[in-house]
Amino acid sequence: MAERDWEQFHSPENLAKSVAIEAGELLECFQWDAAGDRDEVADELADVLTYALLLADRLDLDPEQIIRTKLKRTGEKYPVEKAKGRSTKYDRL
Amino acid sequence: MAERDWEQFHSPENLAKSVAIEAGELLECFQWDAAGDRDEVADELADVLTYALLLADRLDLDPEQIIRTKLKRTGEKYPVEKAKGRSTKYDRL
Amino acid sequence: MAERDWEQFHSPENLAKSVAIEAGELLECFQWDAAGDRDEVADELADVLTYALLLADRLDLDPEQIIRTKLKRTGEKYPVEKAKGRSTKYDRL
Amino acid sequence: MAERDWEQFHSPENLAKSVAIEAGELLECFQWDAAGDRDEVADELADVLTYALLLADRLDLDPEQIIRTKLKRTGEKYPVEKAKGRSTKYDRL
Repeated sequence: MAERDWEQFHSPENLAKSVAIEAGELLECFQWDAAGDRDEVADELADVLTYALLLADRLDLDPEQIIRTKLKRTGEKYPVEKAKGRSTKYDRL
Repeated sequence: MAERDWEQFHSPENLAKSVAIEAGELLECFQWDAAGDRDEVADELADVLTYALLLADRLDLDPEQIIRTKLKRTGEKYPVEKAKGRSTKYDRL
Repeated sequence: MAERDWEQFHSPENLAKSVAIEAGELLECFQWDAAGDRDEVADELADVLTYALLLADRLDLDPEQIIRTKLKRTGEKYPVEKAKGRSTKYDRL
Repeated sequence: MAERDWEQFHSPENLAKSVAIEAGELLECFQWDAAGDRDEVADELADVLTYALLLADRLDLDPEQIIRTKLKRTGEKYPVEKAKGRSTKYDRL
């Protein structure tokens, strides 16, 4: 990456836009039917992950740690006894 | 996750939708100005990563490997000597 | 549209996915710089609008009326005297 | 809108981001199941349309005309005799 001088385009905002753009392409694998082609999904998922990790790096965020922190908070919002087998949003439980 | 029986909602399609939804929330941190609040970004980025990794897991894809494969292909499409310091799409180089 | 038998793919969910996918392509016009090419923007914007209007039609929603209803509610959430010249979200005003 | 001085935030780029953000919220109505709540869909669809129309206005684009132009082009790419009853992308027909 460095050898192509691309960091100049990688503002946090541009990276967030890129994550959204690639997420749209990932979704396109499932546009008209629920079974996406695995190779195409792998390809688009790789793009989402790449930009997401570049954004984490740009803001000095540790991907594993922010995931753990968020999961912990989700765990508190959706207690097992209430959330089991449901997809209801936490504020409606 | 398992203890909440949530796997039933985690079809690849639902996970791809979730990645796109969370990517929209991540982008919202930058909706009206280019500097997003770091904590909010961390929070939304964690959601994007969580669903992206759940999707990889669901399809038995190794995140690191699909990223490497994709970067390798990108490297071939954007040779250093041509792409240096540019954001031009590869088919216009 | 009818003559191609495409209604079968146009479930509300598929149309919502399509709106999101096209919104990603619209955003791509602004991925690396703030000035998008007007013709490309017109093209992608047309796709967003087309799917959004198909979804309205599918659910028997009148586009003009839902826009007016929503704007009225926004007007109540952002009183002129408070919101003037700000982009603050209403729950922080 | 004018009375709140919000035009200053309405650069084409910010509006395109807003369309994508609202498209994500629209998709959220269908996140875990295919049947979205009609009122919530109406609400989010109104936001998508509002920002899409503001963007058209900002770039002096006539919504109806760009839709017609695009549909005409789609019609040429997907001839009735080939596309009938299929969701295949045009370059694979």
